[in-house]
Amino acid sequence: MATQGQVITCKAAVAYEPNKPLVIEDVQVAPPQAGEVRIKILFTALCHTDAYTWSGKDPEGLFPCILGHEAAGIVESVGEGVTEVQPGDHVIPCYQAECRECKFCKSGKTNLCGKVRTATGAGVMMNDRKSRFSINGKPIYHFMGTSTFSQYTVVHDVSVAKIDPQAPLDKVCLLGCGVPTGLGAVWNTAKVEPGAIVAIFGLGTVGLAVAEGAKSAGASRIIGVDIDSKKFDNFGVTEFVNPKDYDKPIQQVLVDLTDGGVDYSFECIGNVSVMRAALECCHKGWGTSVIIGVAASGQEISTRPFQLVTGRVWKGTAFGGFKSRSQVPWLVEKYMKKEIKIDEYITHNLTLGDINKAFDLMHEGGCLRCVLKMNE
Amino acid sequence: MATQGQVITCKAAVAYEPNKPLVIEDVQVAPPQAGEVRIKILFTALCHTDAYTWSGKDPEGLFPCILGHEAAGIVESVGEGVTEVQPGDHVIPCYQAECRECKFCKSGKTNLCGKVRTATGAGVMMNDRKSRFSINGKPIYHFMGTSTFSQYTVVHDVSVAKIDPQAPLDKVCLLGCGVPTGLGAVWNTAKVEPGAIVAIFGLGTVGLAVAEGAKSAGASRIIGVDIDSKKFDNFGVTEFVNPKDYDKPIQQVLVDLTDGGVDYSFECIGNVSVMRAALECCHKGWGTSVIIGVAASGQEISTRPFQLVTGRVWKGTAFGGFKSRSQVPWLVEKYMKKEIKIDEYITHNLTLGDINKAFDLMHEGGCLRCVLKMNE
Ligand SMILES: NC(=O)c1ccc[n+]([C@@H]2O[C@H](COP(=O)([O-])OP(=O)(O)OC[C@H]3O[C@@H](n4cnc5c(N)ncnc54)[C@H](O)[C@@H]3O)[C@@H](O)[C@H]2O)c1
Ligand SMILES: NC(=O)c1ccc[n+]([C@@H]2O[C@H](COP(=O)([O-])OP(=O)(O)OC[C@H]3O[C@@H](n4cnc5c(N)ncnc54)[C@H](O)[C@@H]3O)[C@@H](O)[C@H]2O)c1
Ligand SMILES: [Zn+2]
Ligand SMILES: [Zn+2]
Ligand SMILES: [Zn+2]
Ligand SMILES: [Zn+2]
Repeated sequence: MATQGQVITCKAAVAYEPNKPLVIEDVQVAPPQAGEVRIKILFTALCHTDAYTWSGKDPEGLFPCILGHEAAGIVESVGEGVTEVQPGDHVIPCYQAECRECKFCKSGKTNLCGKVRTATGAGVMMNDRKSRFSINGKPIYHFMGTSTFSQYTVVHDVSVAKIDPQAPLDKVCLLGCGVPTGLGAVWNTAKVEPGAIVAIFGLGTVGLAVAEGAKSAGASRIIGVDIDSKKFDNFGVTEFVNPKDYDKPIQQVLVDLTDGGVDYSFECIGNVSVMRAALECCHKGWGTSVIIGVAASGQEISTRPFQLVTGRVWKGTAFGGFKSRSQVPWLVEKYMKKEIKIDEYITHNLTLGDINKAFDLMHEGGCLRCVLKMNE
Repeated sequence: MATQGQVITCKAAVAYEPNKPLVIEDVQVAPPQAGEVRIKILFTALCHTDAYTWSGKDPEGLFPCILGHEAAGIVESVGEGVTEVQPGDHVIPCYQAECRECKFCKSGKTNLCGKVRTATGAGVMMNDRKSRFSINGKPIYHFMGTSTFSQYTVVHDVSVAKIDPQAPLDKVCLLGCGVPTGLGAVWNTAKVEPGAIVAIFGLGTVGLAVAEGAKSAGASRIIGVDIDSKKFDNFGVTEFVNPKDYDKPIQQVLVDLTDGGVDYSFECIGNVSVMRAALECCHKGWGTSVIIGVAASGQEISTRPFQLVTGRVWKGTAFGGFKSRSQVPWLVEKYMKKEIKIDEYITHNLTLGDINKAFDLMHEGGCLRCVLKMNE
């Protein structure tokens, strides 16, 4: 390809400062170095983690940066030593890497690969601890090792999942974050079994993916809890509870509804009081609560230790416990076989130029995921 | 027997008021009603839960009462419908009942039987919601459904484990609480696997039983943490850490000692700050922390939710997850086959009349368990 080995100038949405509208800029994207992959991003969705860092509440947020971590594209070129993907491959960038070599990857107990974490946490690439993005020579930080709000991005090879080239990229981009997170929280982290009673706090994309996962796991009751009474019934929610309709604490409402509490609960909001409620609505003896939502920095969860001594279990999950490079392609296959939904989560389609409008939409009740077309 | 069906007058240590010395009194013990068993207690040990309620810090503590829940004795008589034990059987009273019929017992997921809980929590027997203890007609409350600081006690039949009559009652009385709690926390709740790195906070009887359990499970490192540098090496602790020897927080000390954190941690103190440290010293991705200690009422545990989102698991355990009637006899067998220790936990032997001295001893560093002989 003509661009290989060259700096590419393309459009990207740059976050210069917290809470200020993103600016569409001409950005220079350097060629991939050893162990790196340059990807032409075709579609990206927005997730709340982008909005969180953009809001300035993330103390580890670095500016100026290029946000975005839920996307799909095609490999443009690869750096030295990259063997598992080649130009033309259809891929999903994965903020959760999988190197298959580190202590974490080899443990068989977690998907939290440690290989490139210190670099991605610092907004740079591991090879030279520098950014591949710049504008007129001034570096722009990477974000989550993905930075998909750019027409081209550079990622570590351990952060690229190669997928079926037949898969529609405008849909499977969602497999970069929210949908796998919800499904995996049920299948990998909680391991919900047939007949179980499940409560889901927060019915955004993540919560609805939990509902879908719980339905496929055979849960007998799937109780959705949200302060916004919008309903997305087709994901599997069997009962809807709005905390605003009750005077008593929501944990008590659920305990009463379920003769003692739920078997599994999932917090899909990022609110520490709701995290507590989610634990405390679990059944004594075995109820397990999984935290998925990302709370504002500095906030803490608390409860009486007696809740745990009497058998409740408190857990959390990142990317639903899925090993990214190994399992994202498998999720794509499941979508192609119509075993999991994706289309239903996409409520809006816009273009990169409309990205600020897309951020506004996230705060509106009717929006689950907004997918941006990049090449316009 | 001559006493069957009769009120028995015997010696018992009565707690009239929080924090006031127990008084050895002549107490009237009524005959067992339907579903009840009257036991001649031969030996009882003291546990911190007795001291906790006695201290007045337990908001559910009822006075006057007869404390005690770690004991062994012989069935004196049984009430109507009791089929599983008969006079002369050697038994261990179990504060955690096992009815084999309730939702909890049948779940296969917990040892927290619910059958007699509302009665034992209220200091009475289920049949008539009254106490079997009185002094000159004035009722004295039961405690934990066991009240073993009495030469005779009445318990529910679902709270009696029938054991090998060859077992020395002055030893196996410890299988009523502390030792099974520690062993079971490892075997049943955490399910420690060979090679694991374990940290134990608090090296009293419970903590040392955790060490013993971890050793038998094949843990590679067993790090004991205590502010009192007394050592009980023979239980399996491989390294000792005194938080007072460090300036940095104890969770950081352990993370540094173990290249990222421990696989399993156990809190065996009842201190909510230590509970937090025990969670936070766990390895990212999989570390599991088990709360065993009973915190003062109203106190809460807290941490940043990120600790859980990045893979740590927070649990607790009551009576080590053992099903009492089914598994206490099995623990007795293990002791008889020298597969578990008991004698080593008994640092003092006194008589019922010395019970206040025994409570004093509990606060001394050199004391693990003090066993009281009852029939003197
Ligand atoms: N752990 C991970 O790997 C991971 C991955 C993706 C997203 N997340 C996090 O998951 C959370 C959910 O993401 P999303 O995209 O579904 O968000 P979303 O904003 O679309 O959905 C949140 C829902 O919660 C509801 N809600 C808000 N406050 C509530 C309350 N007090 N009680 C009940 N409902 C309430 C809202 O009405 C909304 O429907 C976010 O915190 C996000 O950062 C975590
Ligand atoms: N969950 C259950 O089923 C169950 C059953 C039995 C006992 N318990 C509880 O377990 C706890 C331990 O019981 P035990 O009989 O072994 O008690 P113990 O008092 O003999 O042992 C506690 C140990 O903790 C140490 N310690 C105190 N503060 C410390 C600190 N800040 N850092 C490090 N070490 C510290 C003490 O020096 C002591 O060695 C108690 O809270 C008891 O109520 C719970
Ligand atoms: Zn996301
Ligand atoms: Zn790895
Ligand atoms: Zn005890
Ligand atoms: Zn039961």
